[in-house]
Amino acid sequence: MLIDAPKGLKDVVVTSTQIGDVNGAAGYYHYREHDAIELARTRSFEDVWFLFAEGRLPGPDESALFTAQIAAQRQLPASIREVLPAIARSGCTALAGLRTALSMLPSQPMWDAPMSTRKADALRVSAMTPTILAALHRLKLGLDPVNPRVDLSTSANWLHMVTGQEPSSWASRAVEQYLIATIDHGFNASTFTARVVASAGADVVSAVAAAIGTFSGPLHGGAPDRALEALDLIGTPDNIDAWVRERVERGDRIMGFGHAVYRTEDPRARLLREIALERPAELTDFAVTVERRVTELLQELKPGRQLYANVEFYAGVVMELCGIPREMFTPTFACSRVIGWCANALEQSEDTKIIRPVARYTGPAPRIGSAPIK
Amino acid sequence: MLIDAPKGLKDVVVTSTQIGDVNGAAGYYHYREHDAIELARTRSFEDVWFLFAEGRLPGPDESALFTAQIAAQRQLPASIREVLPAIARSGCTALAGLRTALSMLPSQPMWDAPMSTRKADALRVSAMTPTILAALHRLKLGLDPVNPRVDLSTSANWLHMVTGQEPSSWASRAVEQYLIATIDHGFNASTFTARVVASAGADVVSAVAAAIGTFSGPLHGGAPDRALEALDLIGTPDNIDAWVRERVERGDRIMGFGHAVYRTEDPRARLLREIALERPAELTDFAVTVERRVTELLQELKPGRQLYANVEFYAGVVMELCGIPREMFTPTFACSRVIGWCANALEQSEDTKIIRPVARYTGPAPRIGSAPIK
Repeated sequence: MLIDAPKGLKDVVVTSTQIGDVNGAAGYYHYREHDAIELARTRSFEDVWFLFAEGRLPGPDESALFTAQIAAQRQLPASIREVLPAIARSGCTALAGLRTALSMLPSQPMWDAPMSTRKADALRVSAMTPTILAALHRLKLGLDPVNPRVDLSTSANWLHMVTGQEPSSWASRAVEQYLIATIDHGFNASTFTARVVASAGADVVSAVAAAIGTFSGPLHGGAPDRALEALDLIGTPDNIDAWVRERVERGDRIMGFGHAVYRTEDPRARLLREIALERPAELTDFAVTVERRVTELLQELKPGRQLYANVEFYAGVVMELCGIPREMFTPTFACSRVIGWCANALEQSEDTKIIRPVARYTGPAPRIGSAPIK
Repeated sequence: MLIDAPKGLKDVVVTSTQIGDVNGAAGYYHYREHDAIELARTRSFEDVWFLFAEGRLPGPDESALFTAQIAAQRQLPASIREVLPAIARSGCTALAGLRTALSMLPSQPMWDAPMSTRKADALRVSAMTPTILAALHRLKLGLDPVNPRVDLSTSANWLHMVTGQEPSSWASRAVEQYLIATIDHGFNASTFTARVVASAGADVVSAVAAAIGTFSGPLHGGAPDRALEALDLIGTPDNIDAWVRERVERGDRIMGFGHAVYRTEDPRARLLREIALERPAELTDFAVTVERRVTELLQELKPGRQLYANVEFYAGVVMELCGIPREMFTPTFACSRVIGWCANALEQSEDTKIIRPVARYTGPAPRIGSAPIK
């Protein structure tokens, strides 16, 4: 007997997880039992990565060891380095390029592999992701890739590889907090995709490659460059009202505002606003002005909808202040989210039941004739 | 409110489809309204491909035009040809290699693209899949890839590119029927994956790359080489009983027998047995003997379970008789299934609701403290 479910499987429980959750009504989210925003404020990216890999925060020695372990795995194998120039020339997007390069990495079907192997595969995939993305970016610009450095944190090394320059400690820490805050966010669509693939017993690379596809879909959300484009289009404070009213009248969404789950301010937006405000900048002042006025206008134009600035809105501002080029905003997001995908894929791989719902056939009735049924 | 569903979303309706369905109780499956086995017996692969692309069977002129169109798209762009040697050397599997190469193909997010563009992307991905798989196979053997020929049918060209030789008309038609019979099979796990990715508005390449990952998972099933390995392990007819009893006692599955949906003989197994029996061969005689005895034994050892030979069992036999090397059995399957994935991705792309169920958080209660909730 088939079971009818709400469209898009909305609110249908497909699995259980200990990785984290989002409380959209109260306006917070957590990794395991830890408030994610508090982790971003107080911990290193590597510590939180450890939390996703091991299910608990590391002690000081474990933290140092894990940080060194990650750094050592940033280098790409020759097989991948060799194809990067061709990928950069092919015209595919940054995320498709990442998927292309990662796809070549041998990784073991999780169904057959011990957990230690699955963890090692996940660590390697996550550690190489920034290196691949930064190298493809540089190659597209006609520049040589910048070699990853083992003496830098993940975030500092990312800025170094993308810009070719040693980043300021402020920028490194700003990006680090952004990365921590975006590793995971409940059961989002790309995370679900990673788990579907993992549920078939497939390897970590397959799960991540699939998640990248969903992540690149326009309905997934989370493209921080779009919110910054909106700021550009608005241009000046006296243009906010006209711009917002026109878009709302056309039925368009205001990029950077509203969230599928939060009915409060997005806690990531608050964190990132605070980070941006640490440095005086015209862009931040304008963003704050726009945020305030757009929130008011949306309350007026769409009463009861509770549309506040989301993570995209201030993520773009922070990344711009840190010198990350716009085309690298979504790739920066991928550098952290890959860790969430891996943790979810590994958690799913401990369940031996494949995720496989059904479709209801609604086409014309089949004509079974000449092939007799036994 | 969360809705609890059966584990793995078993029997939960996630979408509707007009592409086809499987009737496991009656033992048949269909593409649109057409009996799939009858299509395999009476039509060309290109005609049935047209059915998946356009939703109806072609007339004679349309068939000729479509066949020529497909043939013209078999050639790989230089960007892909350039990276194939590196992919072949990287040590990744055939399917990972396919995903790597396809990942580079620019294709448009389906959410933004007109249906004609989505169809063109799907056709290109499907037409290039055999070329990529065959080229990687040859390169791994240290041989030059064989250029696709426009004057051959999809199946004859596949055998030509894999073996380097002009295939017999019997082998071409045998493989053609296998390919037709395996384009789609209800709502299988890789098909579901393709639809999840498509539901985010992503591009055809992303949907196919994701499906490849699930397809390569050990729980997806459908590895025709495993069934042939079982024949090798059994070796002689007098060894059948001991081999089967030992495996059943250990709790192992008998590869090539039993199916998640069919409670009857797998109609694909019957078709492929008939095809194999067209040519006298020791392998076929042995396979028929093994099938008969294993079916009896499984009825005795697992009464009421209705375990019959499945598609894998005779697919391996037919492909072996056609000169396809065993490591190319699953890639052959991918050459047809990619058409089913594309059709499903495109169908899903017409629905604007993202497929995004939820997970129930079962970890320790979150401690939200220092970051005050607004």
